[in-house]
Amino acid sequence: MSPATVTILGAGAMGSALATPAATAGNRVRLWGTWLDDEPLAELRAGRPHPRTGVLLAAGVGLLDAPGLHAALDGADLVAVAVSSDGVLEVVRHAAAALTPGTPLLLCTKGFGRRPDGTVDLLPPLVAAELPAGCPVVAVGGPCKANEVAAGRPTAAVFAGDDPAVVAGCARTLATPAYRVACSGDLPGVEAAAATKNVYAIAVGVCHGLAEAGGEPWHDLAAASFTQAVAEMRRLAVVAGGREETVLGLAGMGDLEVTSLSGRNRVFGARVGRGEPPADALAAMAAAGQTVEGVPAARLAADLAARHGLDLPLLAAVNRVLDGAPDPAAELAAAVLPS
Amino acid sequence: MSPATVTILGAGAMGSALATPAATAGNRVRLWGTWLDDEPLAELRAGRPHPRTGVLLAAGVGLLDAPGLHAALDGADLVAVAVSSDGVLEVVRHAAAALTPGTPLLLCTKGFGRRPDGTVDLLPPLVAAELPAGCPVVAVGGPCKANEVAAGRPTAAVFAGDDPAVVAGCARTLATPAYRVACSGDLPGVEAAAATKNVYAIAVGVCHGLAEAGGEPWHDLAAASFTQAVAEMRRLAVVAGGREETVLGLAGMGDLEVTSLSGRNRVFGARVGRGEPPADALAAMAAAGQTVEGVPAARLAADLAARHGLDLPLLAAVNRVLDGAPDPAAELAAAVLPS
Repeated sequence: MSPATVTILGAGAMGSALATPAATAGNRVRLWGTWLDDEPLAELRAGRPHPRTGVLLAAGVGLLDAPGLHAALDGADLVAVAVSSDGVLEVVRHAAAALTPGTPLLLCTKGFGRRPDGTVDLLPPLVAAELPAGCPVVAVGGPCKANEVAAGRPTAAVFAGDDPAVVAGCARTLATPAYRVACSGDLPGVEAAAATKNVYAIAVGVCHGLAEAGGEPWHDLAAASFTQAVAEMRRLAVVAGGREETVLGLAGMGDLEVTSLSGRNRVFGARVGRGEPPADALAAMAAAGQTVEGVPAARLAADLAARHGLDLPLLAAVNRVLDGAPDPAAELAAAVLPS
Repeated sequence: MSPATVTILGAGAMGSALATPAATAGNRVRLWGTWLDDEPLAELRAGRPHPRTGVLLAAGVGLLDAPGLHAALDGADLVAVAVSSDGVLEVVRHAAAALTPGTPLLLCTKGFGRRPDGTVDLLPPLVAAELPAGCPVVAVGGPCKANEVAAGRPTAAVFAGDDPAVVAGCARTLATPAYRVACSGDLPGVEAAAATKNVYAIAVGVCHGLAEAGGEPWHDLAAASFTQAVAEMRRLAVVAGGREETVLGLAGMGDLEVTSLSGRNRVFGARVGRGEPPADALAAMAAAGQTVEGVPAARLAADLAARHGLDLPLLAAVNRVLDGAPDPAAELAAAVLPS
């Protein structure tokens, strides 16, 4: 393969992490930061580790800050988008004018969004609507923690899109011996799983918080919650236009497992399980710059479920917990244990 | 419901734990210990916690030691068997003469065994062959850690057998608000999942051991291993005569999750992941009285897979690791990451 020019939009944890496989695979790599990424960019420019991953930037990666968006995109063969879900549409809108038609856009951002009419949709169609014609969206899923991708530890990613040749091309560009990529044609399934796993990782996190508070494990409830989560993720993926089998693979069960092991959604759930009011936990994490993607996703997933007449007891329980239900353990137990 | 007489055979962790729901549900409960259970019986008789669960025995439970087997079984309406897999057939053989025909036998012991001709089979048919005619076997699965069942924390169990009325009767006898029971007609699926999850929890444990050794998470590899484990458990359940959907529920994915969170199989895997030779880790755990059920199950599952022509890369990798393969991380990565 001749080297490609890979531009990564977003210099947060996952954006900077993706520079590791992109550079290791022999590409010319540019990492562009949003107006919110000045601090990590300054650290990386100074040769210090990224504040979120604790890992040094891969060698040879060009750094650009917010005003350099169009320069970052000039001549890009592949554009990866890894900004937070609340900023992604704005960044894509700004980027669109500088994209060469046909350039694939690799979407690392996860979550749901709303269409102009207010109904809930997955991010790829909302992103695609902002792009020039002929720029295909390829979604990234699978159990990939940014710090591990950055450090080059073994990781399985899933790239999904409508055109198998485009998906395979993106995989060839970015895959390395450590960062392995499975290709999928089920874009809605991968996206739905990626968005909903954050919601359900909160539930598993609550169980771990109960254990931390009481000094005794609540593993049985955690495991029953995990199982119910996968069952509900299967149903949500189907109403989003995806396939159940996708949820049963790396992009669903695998991503839920890794998200339940660590990360902000688990941390948030654990704080709630330890007895902190959800609003306080969320505010404290927001003050520390930590977005908990599963919280808005829980609301949007409930909208999606209601629109399709799905009865998803664990999703409803998570939303009640977010609303301040006084006994999170009882909410989860009622939702996930056999009746 | 009128109270039943419930006899539990085996006073190890799970046997003594099951006394909690059995007594809470209002039954007359007897707990019988094998010739290996003298120490926990002595602790329980002295009013101290069980040495394995750390939990006091439920009030009113009668304790009997090895010579009292037939007295323990006299008039029993339900017999639960919770001795280790290497002793279960011998205990059942001794118990058979004292069982009233028609008494259901609830099998908590998990694993594979060998038929007289040497081929591998699940435990229930091997146990049934030792029983008087008309004593149905009901298998227990699901994410149930003994210490949590003993303490009365929320737990989902799965009872599986061929006769729905018998399974439902066992569930009615033992279920409590904390110990919830789902009924299943898929005995081979539940049993196959229960036996194989121990094997795969070793793999997940190796990843956690790699993390402990290096001080950096290997969650991505753990999650990919978990996902591949469920995929292989589905295939093993089918060749054992069970259903894939059973593996995707509490008895499969749920039990794998809880077994990957804690327990001897995870602990053994973590020791290997930290660099201890498997034979040394196994010997050290055996010296501490800790059976690692997943180790013999890995060999027997490989036999079963080979007989049915299944190619299961993670099962093969676990067996190579048990054989002392020098780089467990590389074995797992080759087996579970996309190629």
